[in-house]
Amino acid sequence: MLRTHTCGELTVQDAGKEVTLSGWVFRSRDQGGMVFIDLRDRYGFTQLVFLNPAKNMAGKGAYRKQMSDAELQSLYDSSKTLGREYVIKATGIVQERSNKNPNITTGDIEILVESLEVLNASKTPPFTLEDETDGGDELRMKYRYLDLRRDAVKDNLLNRHKVAKAIREYLDGQGFADIETPFLIKSTPEGARDFVVPSRVNQGEFYALPQSPQTFKQLLMVAGFDRYYQIVRCFRDEDLRADRQPEFTQIDCEMAFVEQEDVLNMFEGMVKYAFKKVRNIEFPNFPRMTYADALRLYGNDKPDIRFGMLLHEITSVVKGKGFKVLDDAEYAGVISVPGASEYTRKQTDDLTEFVKRPQIGAKGLIYVKYSEDGSLKSSVDKFYTPDDLKKWAEAAEAKPGDLLLVVSGDKATSRRALSELRLEMGNRLGLRDKNVYKPLWVLDFPLLEQDKETGRWVACHHPFTSWKKEDEHYFETAPGEIRANAYDLVINGVELSSGSVRIHDRGKQEKMFQAIGLSKEEWEKKFSFILNAFEYGAPPHGGIAFGFDRFCSICISNEDYIRDFIAFPKNNAGRDTMMDTPATINEEQLKELGIQVNAPE
Amino acid sequence: MLRTHTCGELTVQDAGKEVTLSGWVFRSRDQGGMVFIDLRDRYGFTQLVFLNPAKNMAGKGAYRKQMSDAELQSLYDSSKTLGREYVIKATGIVQERSNKNPNITTGDIEILVESLEVLNASKTPPFTLEDETDGGDELRMKYRYLDLRRDAVKDNLLNRHKVAKAIREYLDGQGFADIETPFLIKSTPEGARDFVVPSRVNQGEFYALPQSPQTFKQLLMVAGFDRYYQIVRCFRDEDLRADRQPEFTQIDCEMAFVEQEDVLNMFEGMVKYAFKKVRNIEFPNFPRMTYADALRLYGNDKPDIRFGMLLHEITSVVKGKGFKVLDDAEYAGVISVPGASEYTRKQTDDLTEFVKRPQIGAKGLIYVKYSEDGSLKSSVDKFYTPDDLKKWAEAAEAKPGDLLLVVSGDKATSRRALSELRLEMGNRLGLRDKNVYKPLWVLDFPLLEQDKETGRWVACHHPFTSWKKEDEHYFETAPGEIRANAYDLVINGVELSSGSVRIHDRGKQEKMFQAIGLSKEEWEKKFSFILNAFEYGAPPHGGIAFGFDRFCSICISNEDYIRDFIAFPKNNAGRDTMMDTPATINEEQLKELGIQVNAPE
Repeated sequence: MLRTHTCGELTVQDAGKEVTLSGWVFRSRDQGGMVFIDLRDRYGFTQLVFLNPAKNMAGKGAYRKQMSDAELQSLYDSSKTLGREYVIKATGIVQERSNKNPNITTGDIEILVESLEVLNASKTPPFTLEDETDGGDELRMKYRYLDLRRDAVKDNLLNRHKVAKAIREYLDGQGFADIETPFLIKSTPEGARDFVVPSRVNQGEFYALPQSPQTFKQLLMVAGFDRYYQIVRCFRDEDLRADRQPEFTQIDCEMAFVEQEDVLNMFEGMVKYAFKKVRNIEFPNFPRMTYADALRLYGNDKPDIRFGMLLHEITSVVKGKGFKVLDDAEYAGVISVPGASEYTRKQTDDLTEFVKRPQIGAKGLIYVKYSEDGSLKSSVDKFYTPDDLKKWAEAAEAKPGDLLLVVSGDKATSRRALSELRLEMGNRLGLRDKNVYKPLWVLDFPLLEQDKETGRWVACHHPFTSWKKEDEHYFETAPGEIRANAYDLVINGVELSSGSVRIHDRGKQEKMFQAIGLSKEEWEKKFSFILNAFEYGAPPHGGIAFGFDRFCSICISNEDYIRDFIAFPKNNAGRDTMMDTPATINEEQLKELGIQVNAPE
Repeated sequence: MLRTHTCGELTVQDAGKEVTLSGWVFRSRDQGGMVFIDLRDRYGFTQLVFLNPAKNMAGKGAYRKQMSDAELQSLYDSSKTLGREYVIKATGIVQERSNKNPNITTGDIEILVESLEVLNASKTPPFTLEDETDGGDELRMKYRYLDLRRDAVKDNLLNRHKVAKAIREYLDGQGFADIETPFLIKSTPEGARDFVVPSRVNQGEFYALPQSPQTFKQLLMVAGFDRYYQIVRCFRDEDLRADRQPEFTQIDCEMAFVEQEDVLNMFEGMVKYAFKKVRNIEFPNFPRMTYADALRLYGNDKPDIRFGMLLHEITSVVKGKGFKVLDDAEYAGVISVPGASEYTRKQTDDLTEFVKRPQIGAKGLIYVKYSEDGSLKSSVDKFYTPDDLKKWAEAAEAKPGDLLLVVSGDKATSRRALSELRLEMGNRLGLRDKNVYKPLWVLDFPLLEQDKETGRWVACHHPFTSWKKEDEHYFETAPGEIRANAYDLVINGVELSSGSVRIHDRGKQEKMFQAIGLSKEEWEKKFSFILNAFEYGAPPHGGIAFGFDRFCSICISNEDYIRDFIAFPKNNAGRDTMMDTPATINEEQLKELGIQVNAPE
């Protein structure tokens, strides 16, 4: 028996009991007359006391065990040799503390130790294990098992379990069946690259790891399972950006005999349930917005609606005054930043630099200062009179005291720039409150978008997404205009999930494959299993998938930083620096697999 | 709205309601005056009725909707065009049946259909979707989505979810944290082969898919998570045998600050909880047996203790009568088969052939017929008198009427043969009752075993298993004698789980690596992350892993056939014949990955 209790449960009610605790030495204080040790385990901290028999005979009466002076001295001496993170087992008597600590549940008691065993020693950790650690990112990744001891990181993972549990409770309660789908599947890359797995038994052939269980969950609907879910690992071999992981977890769901409305209601319920359960936060019904409105009003398809500062298009308002930049613009848009009319030249220059960064790509920024006294002053006074600018202000629904920021050029870039600017100003003005959650359904996404480089039409969501009947005629004329039965759930500007009502008809599915440039040969080779399945009584169905790592990050901390919610994440180069992988494998393995590595070019 | 109710919920209480159901046409009967359709969904069957207006005007009054005769005729005509597995939506009035079906929950009612929509047509399925199907294995695998419609298969998967749910409930309740571990890890094959995943970003390097999350769960214990579990996919690139899958699911668990007894009690509790919850079966406490006793009494390490027929060693009893086969044998053992003393020559010949099959490998079989009248007759009467045979019978604790079966030779082979013979006789005599479950802990497995081909010592469980202190001296003298702190849970002769108390000390871990022939360079390259972790305060810990597919198969059907409990299994060649994978990938993918496929030899 290595312990009778954990370090998080003893209280004054236990005073007088003999207990055994095991855990890690977190802090140790030698006060001459006694040594105090904060013993830590997953559940909390408990203070251990070791008395110096030479100086502190008063406490001796409290011992339960008969101990000679030599034994007492030896126990006391041992306590002084315990380093940080030593693993020990201590038996002793629970006693009420004179000096209570109201911040921890066990703060009213301490253990007068009668016997001590070192279960394992520890080298000094390479960084401190406090919430505010002195360890850099790289060091903490290499010693992830130590970083995970820090309360902040540990709690993230324990809370992640709570989120998963809440989600399972809800979905189990709604009759969803948790059905496991295969990990060794077929490579059918559309969009992102697949990770592949060479087959030893079938040399020259490969499995692929799933980017999502999309086709399998659809087959489960064809099979009649009606409601399916899985919290499941997915894999995408992308060029890694900050906070992307090659493997990530998805809450993957599908329902049969549903229309879009049924799916939205079901999963709105799930999100509400999880937030209530984990954070005790209650949501009113989620507002909804079309993709078109999201772009028009917020400049992007995942609006942070915690604050206003909406985009207003002023393309027609600004034309005809001889300013070529605006006269030639496909689009001009404006946001009004409240209370910023007195920004200095340096501040507005800063904002200009901000929108001109390559990742945003605007050509420039026009500002109009709408002073409290009603006067208007702009960076384009050469072309526009105060009366002209007044019209801009009206179009922007600006108030005196606002700073108007105008971006123009091609529509997509300008909107994106205004969106980034809006979020940046929201940050600067403290409008993106971490205590506020604003969920939003974004609906009616386009079905297809044109790849800029190749000119090919690609599926916005994925090629199994159905479209609105009334838009079908656009297939021949304007594929970009076809609206899909596709929806995203966005919270505070972060995309939490994506879903759609699917195609369930072979003819329509082939039409879609054709639209994205697959040949009949290609779709038969890659997708004949699902095309065939559609011919044997496929029911109408639809579903959704939530990025579970992101869901946890948002739900638990209202931050969009998934790596803190993954036990053993990879770094931005896709490496696990703790295990040191990926790594070379031996020749024997390669030979058995029937593959060889190309010589470096 | 595609349905107001499912096909499994309407009862007489709903009579008179207008409802909409969606589902599959399971059976259709045209009775001239009316057409009956059994509509199926996941939840059950409901009978739909379509009236022939020409012949059946009596029912007309029951319609709620105003319909012209032409409309009624058209509805009726449509109902006759519905083929098997068509997906339809039907709206109508619930009415009490005159001809009730007590076998289904909805058997008291039927739906008088007023409107019908075909949601999707279906080709005729290539096999019948009844419990007793006419489809062969291969066909059903190719059309797995249809096979999954059969109640038997569907229920297996729904019950699998129930098992998972019960296990999560229990472990959540015991404070186990569900923590996800990585799938893209490092290749460290010991024993089975790893599946590997070429890295595109780090060319020439590979990830491996985990054979189990063993080292990660140990690191989670080092990190202080105290109790961990995961229901997680694992991968093993083995040469496939019947009913082995390259990917399989494991209930993976680990606990810190425990001794073997703590682990056994915790997971005995889990198994009891799951069987109670899913099957309403209650177990008394599980008996325990040492590995040595299991081999001695049952001839193998996973005894089916539903029946006796124990092995008895008679090596010394049989020697010295001039029969060379037995005189020279390392081991001779016997089982007594009750009531089989009158077996014919053909029957005993059959049994001889049985033990001589290559997969069993015995050289022959000796039998002694111990007749009801007390007389003894054997296949070796030339060497042994009835008095000699009487001694055999006594050693075997045989009774008149028994058939004694003796196998001799080297100890391991003979015991294995007797074990197989015992199970076979158990089957023939109906002693392996499918309604009986007999769990058993097998303890004190050996730490190391010698590979027959290479002579190398390998870990019986895995190289992270600790050993009994009192056996440590055998490392130098007789490694095969060291007993591990390792345990298996066996039910009815099937190994459900394996576990051990782990090594948590760097020195001991290196000693183990050395014992299995790893060099310092090898263990530092492969395992330095865990060796390092052991130096930073690793707590004592131990755990267990259950084969979840097998757990479901045993718990749900008391059969050991996992493929029936996996939604999309692979065949014995590791292929998914539905998707047709593994498959070739294109040159572009190979080039990006920096690998090439060897030309076939």
